Amino acid sequence: MGTASVSGRGTPPAKMFASDNAAGASAEIVDAVAAVSMEAHLAYGNDPVTAAAGERVAEVFGTDVDVHCVSTGSAANSLALSALTRPWGSILCHRSAHIEVDECGGPEFFTGGAKLVLLDGDDGKIDPGELRRAVRHRAGDVHSVQPQVLSLTQATETGSVYSLDEIHTLTGIARDAGLRTHLDGARFANALVHLDVSPAEMSWRCGVDLLSFGITKNGGMTTDAVVSFDGSLRDELAFRVKRAGQLASKLRFESAQVLAYLADDLWLRNARHANMMAQRLVSGLHATSGVAVRGAAQANLVFCDLPDRVIDGLENQGYVFHHGIPEPGVARLVTSHATTTESVDGLLTAIGDLVHDDRG
Amino acid sequence: MGTASVSGRGTPPAKMFASDNAAGASAEIVDAVAAVSMEAHLAYGNDPVTAAAGERVAEVFGTDVDVHCVSTGSAANSLALSALTRPWGSILCHRSAHIEVDECGGPEFFTGGAKLVLLDGDDGKIDPGELRRAVRHRAGDVHSVQPQVLSLTQATETGSVYSLDEIHTLTGIARDAGLRTHLDGARFANALVHLDVSPAEMSWRCGVDLLSFGITKNGGMTTDAVVSFDGSLRDELAFRVKRAGQLASKLRFESAQVLAYLADDLWLRNARHANMMAQRLVSGLHATSGVAVRGAAQANLVFCDLPDRVIDGLENQGYVFHHGIPEPGVARLVTSHATTTESVDGLLTAIGDLVHDDRG
Amino acid sequence: MGTASVSGRGTPPAKMFASDNAAGASAEIVDAVAAVSMEAHLAYGNDPVTAAAGERVAEVFGTDVDVHCVSTGSAANSLALSALTRPWGSILCHRSAHIEVDECGGPEFFTGGAKLVLLDGDDGKIDPGELRRAVRHRAGDVHSVQPQVLSLTQATETGSVYSLDEIHTLTGIARDAGLRTHLDGARFANALVHLDVSPAEMSWRCGVDLLSFGITKNGGMTTDAVVSFDGSLRDELAFRVKRAGQLASKLRFESAQVLAYLADDLWLRNARHANMMAQRLVSGLHATSGVAVRGAAQANLVFCDLPDRVIDGLENQGYVFHHGIPEPGVARLVTSHATTTESVDGLLTAIGDLVHDDRG
Amino acid sequence: MGTASVSGRGTPPAKMFASDNAAGASAEIVDAVAAVSMEAHLAYGNDPVTAAAGERVAEVFGTDVDVHCVSTGSAANSLALSALTRPWGSILCHRSAHIEVDECGGPEFFTGGAKLVLLDGDDGKIDPGELRRAVRHRAGDVHSVQPQVLSLTQATETGSVYSLDEIHTLTGIARDAGLRTHLDGARFANALVHLDVSPAEMSWRCGVDLLSFGITKNGGMTTDAVVSFDGSLRDELAFRVKRAGQLASKLRFESAQVLAYLADDLWLRNARHANMMAQRLVSGLHATSGVAVRGAAQANLVFCDLPDRVIDGLENQGYVFHHGIPEPGVARLVTSHATTTESVDGLLTAIGDLVHDDRG
Repeated sequence: MGTASVSGRGTPPAKMFASDNAAGASAEIVDAVAAVSMEAHLAYGNDPVTAAAGERVAEVFGTDVDVHCVSTGSAANSLALSALTRPWGSILCHRSAHIEVDECGGPEFFTGGAKLVLLDGDDGKIDPGELRRAVRHRAGDVHSVQPQVLSLTQATETGSVYSLDEIHTLTGIARDAGLRTHLDGARFANALVHLDVSPAEMSWRCGVDLLSFGITKNGGMTTDAVVSFDGSLRDELAFRVKRAGQLASKLRFESAQVLAYLADDLWLRNARHANMMAQRLVSGLHATSGVAVRGAAQANLVFCDLPDRVIDGLENQGYVFHHGIPEPGVARLVTSHATTTESVDGLLTAIGDLVHDDRG
Repeated sequence: MGTASVSGRGTPPAKMFASDNAAGASAEIVDAVAAVSMEAHLAYGNDPVTAAAGERVAEVFGTDVDVHCVSTGSAANSLALSALTRPWGSILCHRSAHIEVDECGGPEFFTGGAKLVLLDGDDGKIDPGELRRAVRHRAGDVHSVQPQVLSLTQATETGSVYSLDEIHTLTGIARDAGLRTHLDGARFANALVHLDVSPAEMSWRCGVDLLSFGITKNGGMTTDAVVSFDGSLRDELAFRVKRAGQLASKLRFESAQVLAYLADDLWLRNARHANMMAQRLVSGLHATSGVAVRGAAQANLVFCDLPDRVIDGLENQGYVFHHGIPEPGVARLVTSHATTTESVDGLLTAIGDLVHDDRG
Repeated sequence: MGTASVSGRGTPPAKMFASDNAAGASAEIVDAVAAVSMEAHLAYGNDPVTAAAGERVAEVFGTDVDVHCVSTGSAANSLALSALTRPWGSILCHRSAHIEVDECGGPEFFTGGAKLVLLDGDDGKIDPGELRRAVRHRAGDVHSVQPQVLSLTQATETGSVYSLDEIHTLTGIARDAGLRTHLDGARFANALVHLDVSPAEMSWRCGVDLLSFGITKNGGMTTDAVVSFDGSLRDELAFRVKRAGQLASKLRFESAQVLAYLADDLWLRNARHANMMAQRLVSGLHATSGVAVRGAAQANLVFCDLPDRVIDGLENQGYVFHHGIPEPGVARLVTSHATTTESVDGLLTAIGDLVHDDRG
Repeated sequence: MGTASVSGRGTPPAKMFASDNAAGASAEIVDAVAAVSMEAHLAYGNDPVTAAAGERVAEVFGTDVDVHCVSTGSAANSLALSALTRPWGSILCHRSAHIEVDECGGPEFFTGGAKLVLLDGDDGKIDPGELRRAVRHRAGDVHSVQPQVLSLTQATETGSVYSLDEIHTLTGIARDAGLRTHLDGARFANALVHLDVSPAEMSWRCGVDLLSFGITKNGGMTTDAVVSFDGSLRDELAFRVKRAGQLASKLRFESAQVLAYLADDLWLRNARHANMMAQRLVSGLHATSGVAVRGAAQANLVFCDLPDRVIDGLENQGYVFHHGIPEPGVARLVTSHATTTESVDGLLTAIGDLVHDDRG
C-alpha cells in the first residue's frame, strides 16, 4: 500500500472553513522542501539553508534576530514564555489566549509552573486598565507569583487586530513595570497586511521581545519559529529548544520552508488573500438578512450568528467549521491562502438558501 | 532571493560520513509529502492520512499500537520515558546512551526530574549483571530514586546490535523487578535488517513497552514517532504529546512520511543499503594495513583508528565525519540510504593513499 | 548574645489580630517537644513517637490513614495536590483559595505545571453549579488541561464553614466526574467545632481523599500534616514528601506536636476558644453602630467594614491586623487559642471609642 | 493518652551510633524555643526573632548574608542548587554526595531537571583533576547539559575534612570556568572545629556562594538554613523558599533555634564534643587488634572494618548503627553532641570483648 490510497479522502477544500491549519501548503513551500532533499548537510542547523533562513528573517525584520524553527506554534509559545519568566512568575494574557485555552498547560510545563493570569478586554484585546492593575498586583510579595511577561496575540483569537498604538500602549505599561513582552503571532502575517505596516513596526519597534512567528497557518507545512529580538536570550533559547526535543536533525527542511515563505512576498500574498476572502465572506454575510457578523473580522477569522438549522444544513452539505465558540449559535469561519472566491461564494449561497428556508 | 541560492552549498554527498541524519530524504517520502499538500484536512491528526499511518504501523508491527509522530528522536525518547516513569523514578541506560549524552537533559525535563542511572557493558550494550544489581538498588528506600524504566538503544551508539536473546534477557530482568522497557530505535531499521527478524520480534515480543521509532535517520524528513504497545498509556501519551508542543497541526505531513516510509519496504531497503555500505567500508578498512576497525559495526556506524595525519588529510579533501569519539584518533564513519558505493570506494582510496603517505 | 534579648519585642498578644499563626504555641505542645528532646531515636520517622502519632491520628479519624508531618500548610497542600493530579490536570478551587492566592505557585511547582481553575461562589464557598460546569469542561479534549481534583477549603478564607451537606454535594459532583477531593484544612479544627461533628464526618465520610491537616494555626509550633485516606497513595506520598525536602530527620519533634495537639482534646479546646473569641468580637461589633460585620464569621475570622479613621486609630494604638481584604475599608480580625476575652473587649472598646470620635 | 507514654521507648542514648540526627536536641535550643512560645509575632519571618537570627548569622560569618531557615538539609541543598543552576545545567559533585545518593532526586525536582554529574576522588573528596575535566565538558555544546555548579560537602560523607587549600583549589577551578559553588554543610561545624578556622574562612572567603548550614545534626531540633553570600540571589531565594512550602508561618520557632545554636558558642562546643568522642572511638579502635579504621575520621563519623560476628553481637546488645556502607563488613559509627565518654568506652569494651570472643 502507499500514500495514494488516502489522497482525496479529506474534506473538499471548497467546503473547509474549520481553520487555516486545515488547508494544505503553498506549492512554493513544498517545492523548496523538495529542492533541498537530495543535499547532504550537517545536522541540527549547521547547514547553509538554515544560515540563509536566519539571515533572511533578520532582513525581513530589519534587525538582528535569533531564529529557532519549531514544529508547532504551541512549542514556539511555550519556549518563548519559558525564556521570559521564572517559575515563580506570572504571564499576563487575554482570557481567550491560545496559551491559556488550547495548549493543555504547555506554558506551565515549559516554565516550570509559572501561572497564567487572565485579563479581560473587548474584542479579544487586553484592556489597558486591566493590564495596569495586573502588572503591579502584589509585586514584591513573596506569597504571590510575580508578573513578568505580557503575552499578546496578534491577530487575536476573535479575528481582531491590535493597532500599533494599542500595542505600544500595552507593551509600555508592561515595560514600565519591568515585564517583557511576548507576541503570539500565529496569524502575524494576517495582522500585518491588515495594518499595512512593516514587520519591524509590528514587533520589536513596538516593544515585542520574543515573537512566535506563525508559518503553518499561512501556507507552511511543518514549521513555525521563535524569533528573538533580544540577543541576551540567545544561549537560553538554544538550550531550551534542544532540551524540549525541538531541535530538528534535518533542520534544513524547516529552514527551506522559512526561506520560501519569505521569498517573493509569498507570506504577504498568502495573508492578503486569506484576509480578502474573509472580507468577501463578511460582505456577503452582511447582505444576508438574519445573519449577524460578530466582532471586527479584520484578519481571516469570521464569527457570525447563525440559526441552528442553518448550521445543521451547512454540515449536512459537507461544510466543515467550528461553532459554539464562544456560545451556541455562533459559527467560526476561517479562510486561508487556499480558500477560493468560488468557495466563499458557494458558502454564501448555501447560507442564503438555508436562511431563506429557515424563515420560510 | 529564494531557496535556489543556497542549494548545492552543502557537503558533496559523496564526502559526507558525519551522520545518517546528514543525508537528504528518500524521494518517495518527499513525493508523499507533496502529494498531500493540496488537500484540506482537519488539523491535529483528525485526518485520513494520519488514520492510515496508524493502521499501517499496527500492520507492520502485527499488533495494536498508538502512534505519535513527533519532530525529533529526542522528543520521542523524552515523551516515552515520561510516560513510563514517575518523577522519583530512575531510568537505567547504558553510559553511552543518547538520552544521557546528547539530549541536553531532555528526559529530566519531560519526566519532572527523574534520574538517569548509567550502566556499563561492552560494545555499547548493557551488561546483564549490571542491570540485575541496578534494578534492585535501594528499592523501596524513600531516600533514593526508584528504578522504573530500562532504556535500551537498538542499534547501539557504537554500531553494535543486540540479539533477540540479549534483549529478552534484559527486558526479563527489568520486568521481574517491576520495570518497564523503552527502546530507543533511532536506528531500529538498521538493527532489524541486520538481525533479519520481524518488527514484532524486535519490539513487543521481546518485552518492549514503548518504542522511539526512528525515521529521520533512515530517509525521512521531519518526523520520528513514538509507538506504544501498551494501550493503558494511550491518554497519558496523547496529553503529554500535546502539552510538549509536539502535536503538529498539519499532522498529515508527518503521517504521509510514515506511510511512504513503510510502503513497499522502503524503510527496509534504505536500512539494508546503509548497512551494506558500512560493510563495504569495513571490508575495505580491514584490507588497509595500519587501520583498525573497532567494535562490531553491525549496523551503519563504523568506528576505526586512524592516524592523525590521515584524519587531517581526509578533512583537507573535504570529507566530513566525527572523530575523537570515544577518544582521540578514533573516527566515526556513518553510512546512510544515500551513500553510494562510489563514495565508499572513494573514501577507502583516500584513506589508503593517506595511510601510505603517512608511513612513507 | 542570646535569645533573651529579643523576647518581648513582638506585638503584645492583646493587640494581635493579624492571624492565628501570629499567636505563640500551646504550652502542652511546647512541653511535648521538650519531653522528647533528650531521647535518641532513629531519624526520618523510624521512631516510636512518630509511630504513636500515626496511630493517634488514625484513632481520631476512625480509619486507616497515612500521616506525613510537613513544615507548612503550603507544603501540605502542594504535596497533596501533586499526588492527586497529573501535570496535564486541573485543580478546581474557589477564586479566594489559599492555594491560588497565597502560595506563590507552589501547587504548580509540585504538580509539574497543573493548572488551577478558579470557581466563584458566595461567602468563600464553591457554587455547585459552577463546579458542575467545570468538572466536564473539555473533558477528553487533548488541547485542554483535564479536571482531576476538587480542592475545598474548610473553614474558608472568608471565615465561613461548609455544612456537611454542602461538602457532600460538592465531592459528589467531583466523584461522579472522576475527580478526587483535597481539603485544605488549615482551620480544620475551627470548622469542626463549629459544626460539632466528628473528624471522620468532615473528611473521608464526606468524600475527602487527602487532607491538609492544620496544626500550626491552632496552637502548634512547626508542623502541619498531610493525612491520606487513600492507601493507594501511600508510596507516592512518601516519595514526594522526601523529594520535596519535607521528611524531617528529627521527625519526632513534629510527631510530638501532633500527639500533644490531639491529646486531651487540646486541638478542639483551642479551636473552640478561638471561635468563641470571634463570636464575642462579632457580638460586640454588631452592637457598635457604624460597623458592619461581613459574611458568616463561623470560625475564627471576622471581616468588618471600618471607617478609615478607625483603622488608622487602631494601628496608632498598636493593634495589628490586616485590612483592605477584599477591598479598602474592610478589616480582617483573627482570633486564636491565645486570644483573651480581655483583649477582645479591649479591641471592642477601642473601636467603639474611635467610631464615636469619628462621628463626633 | 499523651506524649509521656512514648518517652523512653527509643534506643538508649548510650547505644545509639546510627547518626548524629538520631540524637536529641541541646537543652539551650529547646529552652530558646520555649522562651518565644508565648509571644505574638507577625508570621513568615516578619518578627524580631528572625531579624535577630539574620543579624547573628551575618555577625558569625563576618559579612552580609541572606538566611532562610528550612525544615531539612535536603531542602537547603535543593533550594541552594536551584538558585545556582538553570534547568539545562549540571551540578558537579562527588559520587558519594548526599545530594546524589540520599535525597530521592530532590535536586532534580527543585532545579527543573538539572543533571548531577558524579566525580571521583579519594576519601570522599573531589579530585581536582576530575573537576578540571568536568568543568569544561562540552561547554557551549547545545546537545549537552552545561556545568554550572560545583557542590562540595564539608565534612564529607566519609568523615574526612577538606583543608582550606583544597577548597580554594576546587572553587578556583569552578570559578575560572564560570561555575558557582555550593557547600553542603550538614556537618559544617564539625569540619570547622577540626580545621580550627573561622566560618568566613571556610565559606565565602574560599569561594563558597551558597551554604547549606547544618544545625539539626549538631544539636538542633527542626531547622537547617540556607546562607547566601551572594546578594544578587536575594529575591530568587525568597520566592523559591516560599514556593517550595519552606517559609514557615511561625518562623520564630526556627529562628530561635538559630540564635541559641550560635549563642555562647554552643554550636562549636557541640561539634568539638562530637569530634572528640569520635577521636576517642578511633583511638580505642586502633588499640583493638583485628579492627581497622577506614579513612580520615576527622569529624564525627568513624568507619571501621568489623567481623560479621562482632557486628551481630553489637546489634544483639542493642547497639544501633549502620553497616554495609560502602561494602559488607564496614560499620559506620557516628558521634554527636549527646554522645558521652561512657557510651564510647562502653562501645569499645563491647567491641573488644566481641573481637576476643570471635578470635577465641
